[in-house]
Amino acid sequence: MNGIDEKPLFNPELLRQIDWSVRKSSFKDGISPENPGKNLQLRPLMMDDYDQGFLNLLGQLTSVGEVTAAAFQKRFLAMKHCPNTYYVVVLEDTNKQQVIGSATLVIEQKFIHSTGCRGRIEDVVVSEDYRGQQLGKLLVETLTLLGKEVGCYKMSLECKEDNVRFYKCFGYTPDGQYFMVQRFSD
Amino acid sequence: MNGIDEKPLFNPELLRQIDWSVRKSSFKDGISPENPGKNLQLRPLMMDDYDQGFLNLLGQLTSVGEVTAAAFQKRFLAMKHCPNTYYVVVLEDTNKQQVIGSATLVIEQKFIHSTGCRGRIEDVVVSEDYRGQQLGKLLVETLTLLGKEVGCYKMSLECKEDNVRFYKCFGYTPDGQYFMVQRFSD
Repeated sequence: MNGIDEKPLFNPELLRQIDWSVRKSSFKDGISPENPGKNLQLRPLMMDDYDQGFLNLLGQLTSVGEVTAAAFQKRFLAMKHCPNTYYVVVLEDTNKQQVIGSATLVIEQKFIHSTGCRGRIEDVVVSEDYRGQQLGKLLVETLTLLGKEVGCYKMSLECKEDNVRFYKCFGYTPDGQYFMVQRFSD
Repeated sequence: MNGIDEKPLFNPELLRQIDWSVRKSSFKDGISPENPGKNLQLRPLMMDDYDQGFLNLLGQLTSVGEVTAAAFQKRFLAMKHCPNTYYVVVLEDTNKQQVIGSATLVIEQKFIHSTGCRGRIEDVVVSEDYRGQQLGKLLVETLTLLGKEVGCYKMSLECKEDNVRFYKCFGYTPDGQYFMVQRFSD
C-alpha cells in the first residue's frame, strides 16, 4: 500500500481542512467528509483506483469507452501535473474495496476578478446500490466548500432540469445565462 | 523584442494549423486568423501584454480589480505551467500596440469519453471602437476550431440570451442542460 500508485491526485489534507460546521445541520446521522457512512471513506482519487472500479462507476454516468490501465495512469498524471486544478474525490466501500461514488472540482484560473479562480463541479455519480444515503449531497457539498477553501470567487455546474431543485439546496441558482454546446464526437 | 517576457502563452503554430477552409465562406473581406484586418494581428497572449492594455480590455467585460504587473505575470506563468490547458488569444492593433480583442479556450481533461477533453470558450471581448468588424466572430470561430484541433469531444460556453443567436452561427446550441451558479465574492 506504499507504492507510487497509491499517491493521491491532490493533498488529502485539503479535505480535512473543510469547515463542515456550516453545513453539518443539513445532514442526517452525523454524516460528514470524515464520516461518510459505515465502511465508507471519502478521499482523493488515487492512481490504483483503476482496479477499484472507478471507470465502471463513471460508466453509470456516461460513455467511458475503452480506457486501458496505461491510458488511465497517463490521464491521472496529466491532471496531477496541472497544479491546483483537478480535485477528483471518490467514495470507497472499504469492505469491498470498490469506488462507489465520485465527483470532480475543476479550477479555472482567470485574469479577471483580481486574477481569481472559478470552480466547476463535474461528473457527479453515486453507484445505484448506494443511492438514498445522502452521498451525492455529501460529494457536492464537499466540493462546493473545497472550492471556497481554495479561493474560487464563483462556482458553477450544469444539470438536467430534474436536478435543479437538488442543486438549489447547496446555494446554486440559475443566473440567467444560457448554456450552449457543440459536439465533435460522442 | 527577444526577452523572456515576449514568450507566448502557447505555441503560435497551433493557430496556423487551423483548417480555416471550412469556415472561410462565412467571413467577409477574406478575414481569417492570419489576416484579421488592417493593422491587426491574431496571436497568443504574451507576457508583456500587461503593458498593451490587455487588462483594460477585460475591464470592458467584467470586474478586473487591482492587478499588478507581478500578479499578472504570476498568473500568466501559472497558466503556462498547466500543459495544454489555457489558450488565451488576443487581437492586437499593431499601429497602436494595443490589445483590442481577446477570448480564451480552456481545456478540461476527463477520464470519461476515452480519457477525452472538453473545451470551454470564456471571456470573449472586443474593444468598443473595433466592433462591427467580425472580430468577435473571428475569435469564437478560431477557438472553436482550435478546440477541435486539440481533440475536444465537446465545446461549450455560457452566454446571455441576447447572444444565443450569435453563438448558434458557430454550431452551438442549447442542449437542455441548466446552468447553475453560486458566488462567494464579486
